[in-house]
Amino acid sequence: MDSIKNRRSIRKYSDKDIEASLLNEIIAEAMQTPTMGNMQLYSVVVSRSKEIKEQLAPAHFNQPMVTGAPVVLTFCADFNRFTKWCEQRNADAGYDNFLSFMNAVQDTLLFAQTVTVLAEAAGLGTCYLGTTVYMPETISKVLNLPKLVVPVATITVGYPAEDAKKSDRLPVEAIMHNETYHDYSAEQIDQIYSAKEALEENKEFVRINKKENLAQVFTDCRYTRKDNEALSKTLWDFVKKQGF
Amino acid sequence: MDSIKNRRSIRKYSDKDIEASLLNEIIAEAMQTPTMGNMQLYSVVVSRSKEIKEQLAPAHFNQPMVTGAPVVLTFCADFNRFTKWCEQRNADAGYDNFLSFMNAVQDTLLFAQTVTVLAEAAGLGTCYLGTTVYMPETISKVLNLPKLVVPVATITVGYPAEDAKKSDRLPVEAIMHNETYHDYSAEQIDQIYSAKEALEENKEFVRINKKENLAQVFTDCRYTRKDNEALSKTLWDFVKKQGF
Repeated sequence: MDSIKNRRSIRKYSDKDIEASLLNEIIAEAMQTPTMGNMQLYSVVVSRSKEIKEQLAPAHFNQPMVTGAPVVLTFCADFNRFTKWCEQRNADAGYDNFLSFMNAVQDTLLFAQTVTVLAEAAGLGTCYLGTTVYMPETISKVLNLPKLVVPVATITVGYPAEDAKKSDRLPVEAIMHNETYHDYSAEQIDQIYSAKEALEENKEFVRINKKENLAQVFTDCRYTRKDNEALSKTLWDFVKKQGF
Repeated sequence: MDSIKNRRSIRKYSDKDIEASLLNEIIAEAMQTPTMGNMQLYSVVVSRSKEIKEQLAPAHFNQPMVTGAPVVLTFCADFNRFTKWCEQRNADAGYDNFLSFMNAVQDTLLFAQTVTVLAEAAGLGTCYLGTTVYMPETISKVLNLPKLVVPVATITVGYPAEDAKKSDRLPVEAIMHNETYHDYSAEQIDQIYSAKEALEENKEFVRINKKENLAQVFTDCRYTRKDNEALSKTLWDFVKKQGF
C-alpha cells in the first residue's frame, strides 16, 4: 500500500480545512479495528478551535504542528464510558487497575494507527506526537478528562503543505526474529546501526551536539536518563490519579 | 478502505502457507509506521513451527488459532536492541523505567496494527490475541525474550477458511468528542449501549450465564475484578523483572 510504504510525517499544513464528514467517515471506519472483547476502550477528542489548540501546545513543547494543523486528535485510553455503563447496570466494574489500563492503551493505539492509515490514504498528512505521555496532566486539564481516561497519543492532521522526506529505518532483519528471539551479537549491533550512523544528517547531529557518536545524541541530549526517570514518575502518578 | 471498513477477525485458516517473501514485504513496509524519535522500539517474532506454536498456545488459553494458523506473530516492546547499541557506543542508556516501557509499547502497537492492515489488504485473515499481556512470562520463556523486551501483542495470520461476521460497534458519537471530552449522562450511556444490548447473540450470553444484563456478563464472567487484579500484579512484576 503506497501510502504506508512511502509514509512520512507531515508537519506543515495548508489552510484547507478538513471536512467534518470526511473526518467522521475516517473515524467511523477505523472503529472496526480489533478491540479487547469488543469493549472499545478508547475515545478521541477532535480539537479544531484555536483556543484549545493553543492550550494544548505547551504540553507538546510548543511544536508548531499543534496550532498549525486544522485538526488535533487526542486519543485517550478510556475505561470511563464502559465503567459508567456497568455501574448503571448494577455490575461490579473492576477496571481500576494496571491490567485494565494496559488493555485500554492497547485498544487506543491500535485504533489511533488505523485512523492514521485511513487519513493518509485519503490524502491527509499527519504527525504523531510522542509528547502526549510527557505532560498528561496538562492535556487532561485542557480536555476535561474524567477519571479512568488517560491521553496516550496525539496526531495532528491536515492537508500537506510540504514534501517531507521519508525517514530512514533499520533493515528488516534487525527487528524480525525467526521462531524465537535471537539476541544480538556486538557485530550484529554494529551492522544494524551502521547505515543510520553513516547518514550525513546524523553525522551533523553528532557535530552540532559535540558528541562522540549518534547514540550519545540520544542518551545525552534527546532522551536522557534524568528526563526519563522524572517523566516516569509524572506519568505513573497521573495514571494512578486517574483511578487505575 | 474496504479491508478496514469490513474488517473481521479470522479464526479459521486454510492449509495454504504464507510465503516468506510476502510476510517480509508486509513487515518491511509496516516499518514506515511512526516511531518515537525514530528509535523503532519493537521486535516481531515470526513463529511457524508446530513446536513453538504448541508451546505458545497455553499462554493464550489454548485458543485454537495459535496452533491452527500458519504464522503466529508476537510483537514485543523492545529496548534491548537500542540499549545494546548505546552501551557499545559508551552512551548512558537510561531506558530502564516506566516511561521508556510505555514509549516502546506505543511503537510496538502502532507497528502491529500497520502489519494487520497490510496483511488484511493482501487477502490474509488475522486474529488479535488480547491474552498476550496475561501470561507474558510463559511467552517470554518460549520465545527466549531477554531483558528490556516484553510481549505486548500477538496476531495469528493465515488465509481465511471461514466467512466470519463483522463485529458490532458503538455509534461513532459514543467515542468522538468535540473540542474537549464531554462526559456521559446516564441517558447517553443507555443510548450508546442500547443497540449492543438488543443484539440477539448478546441476549443469549445473558441467558446462558444466568445474569441480569450484558454488563454483568463482562464484569462477572469475562473480565472480573479478581482476575484483573491478579493479572495486574503478574504483568507489573514481569515488566519490572524485564528491567523496566
